[in-house]
Amino acid sequence: MSFSFDPIGFIRSPYTDKFGIPRQPRLVEAAHARLELCPEYAREEAFKALEGFSHVWVVFVFHDDCLDAGWRPTVRPPRLGGRSTVGVFASRAPYRPNPIGISAVAHEGLERDGNGLALRLRGIDLLDGTPVLDIKPYVPYADALHDARSGFAQERVVCLRPIRFEAAALEGIAQADPDGRLGLRALIEQVLTQDPRPGYMDRYPERRRFGLQLYDRNIRWEFDEQYIRVLSVELAC
Amino acid sequence: MSFSFDPIGFIRSPYTDKFGIPRQPRLVEAAHARLELCPEYAREEAFKALEGFSHVWVVFVFHDDCLDAGWRPTVRPPRLGGRSTVGVFASRAPYRPNPIGISAVAHEGLERDGNGLALRLRGIDLLDGTPVLDIKPYVPYADALHDARSGFAQERVVCLRPIRFEAAALEGIAQADPDGRLGLRALIEQVLTQDPRPGYMDRYPERRRFGLQLYDRNIRWEFDEQYIRVLSVELAC
Repeated sequence: MSFSFDPIGFIRSPYTDKFGIPRQPRLVEAAHARLELCPEYAREEAFKALEGFSHVWVVFVFHDDCLDAGWRPTVRPPRLGGRSTVGVFASRAPYRPNPIGISAVAHEGLERDGNGLALRLRGIDLLDGTPVLDIKPYVPYADALHDARSGFAQERVVCLRPIRFEAAALEGIAQADPDGRLGLRALIEQVLTQDPRPGYMDRYPERRRFGLQLYDRNIRWEFDEQYIRVLSVELAC
Repeated sequence: MSFSFDPIGFIRSPYTDKFGIPRQPRLVEAAHARLELCPEYAREEAFKALEGFSHVWVVFVFHDDCLDAGWRPTVRPPRLGGRSTVGVFASRAPYRPNPIGISAVAHEGLERDGNGLALRLRGIDLLDGTPVLDIKPYVPYADALHDARSGFAQERVVCLRPIRFEAAALEGIAQADPDGRLGLRALIEQVLTQDPRPGYMDRYPERRRFGLQLYDRNIRWEFDEQYIRVLSVELAC
C-alpha cells in the first residue's frame, strides 16, 4: 500500500543552507518566510476563516539537502551532543521512513502578488524550497498539551554570550539589506543566539570560526571567551 | 513533483465505524488502541528513549471511509452546525489535497505478541485500520503554544446530559466484555458524552434515536429531555 502526495506549495525562507537553521520552529522570530502556493491551490477561499487562528501547522517533506541517506532505526540527536543514540521515532530527525515534518508557526495572512498567492509565516525552521503538503489550523485544546513529559528535549537551548558586530559585518549588512526590509541584523543575532554549532563541537574546542548562509550572503563569525563576534557578511559565491 | 509514502503500521482501535469517533484526540481516554507496526519497522531500537516522552504525534492518512470525495476548497465544519463554510486549510477536515492528519495522544509503551510489535496508545480518534506514516515525540517547548488564538474551535464540546444504561444494554455489555478488559461501558459513556450527533441535528429535533458501532457491537441510544439512554448493545451483523 503506497500513498502519493503532491506539494500544495513551496517555502521561501532566508535559510538557503541547512547549517544555521534553528532546531525547532519559533526560536528565530526574525525569520520571515512565505508559503508560495501552487496554482491549483492559490485560491483565497481555501483559507477562509484562517484569520481567526494565530498559528498553523505546516506539514512538509524534508528538503533533499536534509536527507543524506534513507531511514535509520536509530539517530544521534544534536541535543545529546551526537554521542547517544535514540530511536528515530523518539526523535524529530529527518532520517525517517517517511520524511514528513510538522512545525507549528505563526502566520500573518495571505498576500497576492505577481508570483501568485502566498501565506506569510514567521519563525519557521525550514530550508528555502521545502515542499509543503498541508496547512492546518493550530487548535490549542487538541494540540497544546501542558502536562506532556518530554524526555531529553526538555527546553530550548540558547547561548547566552552577547553578540558583537565587527565594522566589516555592519557594512556587509548595510549592503545586503539597505532598507532594513529583510531584518538581516536581527535575523543574524537570533540565529547565532541559538548556537547553531553542531552538538559535538565540545570535542573540538580549538575551532572557533564558523560560517553559515542566510539569503544569498555568507555570514562568518567566531566565538571568543566573552562574545560571539560577527566578522563579515558577504555575497555568497 | 510527487512523493510516495508507505505506512509504517496500522491502527487497531474500537472505532470500527466513523460515526461516533470523537472530533479530536484525547476526548475519549477510555479508547485504548494500538499501532501495529509493519515487519520492517517492528524493531524496539527504533523507539529507544521514547519512554521519556508521555505523548506522541501520530501522522496518519485518513481512512478511506473518511474520504467521500477528493479535496474541496471549502468545508462545513460540524462545530459550526454544518451551516457555515470555512477554507479547507482553516479546518482539520479530511477533504484535503493531501489527506494527512496529525493527532497528539498519550502512549503506554511497546508490546510484542504473536502479531509482532505494537505501540499502545490512549485516547485516539482514529478509525480501525487507519494507515500511519510516522510517530514523533511530542515536544512541549516546540508544540504547546499557550498563547495561540483558535478561531471557531475555541474549546471542546461536551454534552452534559447524564447517561443511563437500560437493562438490555447492561446485558449486552456483559456479553461483549465479560471480563471488563475492553472497558466497554466507560468507552460508551465517554463517546456519548462527546455528543457524536452531526452538527446539523438541531434542524431535526424529532430525531432522537441513534446507533453507532464500537468494536463489533452496535450501540443504540436515545436522547430524551433529561438523559442520554443507552438502549441496547448487540453484535453487529
